[in-house]
Amino acid sequence: MNPGQLPTHMPAVVFDAGLKFMPAYPVPVPPPGWALIRTLAAGICRTDLEIVKGYMGFSGILGHEFVGEVCACDQTDWIGRRVTGEINAACGHCRLCREGLGRHCPERSVLGILNLDGCMAGYCMLPTANLHPIPAGISTERAVFIEPLSAACEILDQVQLDGTEKIAVLGDGRLGILCAWILAAAQGYVTLVGRHPAKLKAARWRSLQTTSELAEVAEADLVVEATGRPQGMLDAMAICRPRGTIVLKSTLASQGELNLAPVVINEITVIGSRCGLFKAGLSQLQRHPDMPIERLISATYPLENALEAFERARSSGALKILLKTR
Amino acid sequence: MNPGQLPTHMPAVVFDAGLKFMPAYPVPVPPPGWALIRTLAAGICRTDLEIVKGYMGFSGILGHEFVGEVCACDQTDWIGRRVTGEINAACGHCRLCREGLGRHCPERSVLGILNLDGCMAGYCMLPTANLHPIPAGISTERAVFIEPLSAACEILDQVQLDGTEKIAVLGDGRLGILCAWILAAAQGYVTLVGRHPAKLKAARWRSLQTTSELAEVAEADLVVEATGRPQGMLDAMAICRPRGTIVLKSTLASQGELNLAPVVINEITVIGSRCGLFKAGLSQLQRHPDMPIERLISATYPLENALEAFERARSSGALKILLKTR
Repeated sequence: MNPGQLPTHMPAVVFDAGLKFMPAYPVPVPPPGWALIRTLAAGICRTDLEIVKGYMGFSGILGHEFVGEVCACDQTDWIGRRVTGEINAACGHCRLCREGLGRHCPERSVLGILNLDGCMAGYCMLPTANLHPIPAGISTERAVFIEPLSAACEILDQVQLDGTEKIAVLGDGRLGILCAWILAAAQGYVTLVGRHPAKLKAARWRSLQTTSELAEVAEADLVVEATGRPQGMLDAMAICRPRGTIVLKSTLASQGELNLAPVVINEITVIGSRCGLFKAGLSQLQRHPDMPIERLISATYPLENALEAFERARSSGALKILLKTR
Repeated sequence: MNPGQLPTHMPAVVFDAGLKFMPAYPVPVPPPGWALIRTLAAGICRTDLEIVKGYMGFSGILGHEFVGEVCACDQTDWIGRRVTGEINAACGHCRLCREGLGRHCPERSVLGILNLDGCMAGYCMLPTANLHPIPAGISTERAVFIEPLSAACEILDQVQLDGTEKIAVLGDGRLGILCAWILAAAQGYVTLVGRHPAKLKAARWRSLQTTSELAEVAEADLVVEATGRPQGMLDAMAICRPRGTIVLKSTLASQGELNLAPVVINEITVIGSRCGLFKAGLSQLQRHPDMPIERLISATYPLENALEAFERARSSGALKILLKTR
């Protein structure tokens, strides 16, 4: 690493009680085994919107969906490579890390979510163990979706499907559509339920069905709750069949009143589902070049217009909003 | 059936906006395939206490834990037998009934809980398909516990245990202790967490550990939530390890504020668990004659003192309260 080639300050989107754009935030200095990454593009996730509402009590640079180029690293073969990176920086030696569950390591920091500055900045840093080179055939815009696609793939890791299940995905936002696509790529009976005709139209792909009527998916065997709204869990409990499964994707800053009695009465299994391994998302991108990821990009903003971009991401009509850092 | 041998009216414990003892309630007339049962003893369950607070919107005779003698039935070989009975009266022909899940039949009525008068009365009725004769070696007092014991056994039907799991059962009430006993009979590392020294003392059996310190069961692989209190789910989420399992046993009339974000973040599996098959509970009673069920009986009241018995069941020191109908 030659510090002389790198600026000492960078633009950054910072949350600290309020959300602000800071034109000159210190560039981080990666410890041994970590890489400094020049960010190319970053995505705004619903988790970012929840953090701005107080979720996780995080303060610092936001952002955990990105593509960038490694520009400094003690393992020099990484330098110059276009990468994305797993967002959990784990200790590597606890019981969970040894089980391959570093994303649950109790000592972990999480990019832009927990004790680690995120990627909505000129630069970010991650352990090299977290990095994934992006194959030349995949555009930067598509590759930004590896993180949320991997989160969608986590469902396949947690639930055994036999191909006969009636599956309902609740929520026609970014994550809901990605979950629906991953499930529709895996098997046949998948319906996406949403309230926005334009988003439901954008979601149409292969055998995926779409509807705005919850009643159409009554008695579902598997319900994926990805609405990002407290009502989502109530809807999921209402349509899940007895002994069925609800995969819970939404993390909310607050959920309000919730009574889990229907879960007990109907002996429903509720599976919390968060990040997935990036190799799963990357593999889906490679196997399904026809997956219409680009339809999910509602707008791209320069980093300095991040506050406007967040405003847009919050609006009901928006799907994915990207920030271009270069 | 000879109607001349049976009274037309009976004493009954009725909930209809308020809880009351009615000395002369009509004796039910069983339809074909059903048996009329002269109740010998009935147990007060936490579900009964929740119903009195509005849970399920039920009105009618309370009670679903009982032992009785069949006194009228079109299948005459049942008459005179000492029985208990599965509480869900199912349609017998829907998809769930065909899968052996009649306890989830959408058309079901449930003894003392849903559209079917319960057992806290001189008589009750159930389909003969629901009845289980009680072997001579099992006392009526122990046999009243077959229903809650079966509910505890449901955990073994829903969760695969390999014998190495660190298990915490939250709640030193009746159901919590029964769950802890069933799990301790199955494997080694089970701790019951409760707030009542006397109840924890009553719970000691075989290898079961007891504690009043939640911190002692941190990072549990399996948590059984049987506290019957809204705090129970919060405690369960706090001690369940990432990718661990929470079995949810409490059904509450209302749960208040609840945020499931920890379930998502730690990718916890929450399994709602309700009634079990009675053959499981009966088999446990037969296999474990040393299971100290009698310790759980805090008091026995005559049926006409049911209001006092409910008051006692509600008190924090009480374990199982029985009603003797004869």
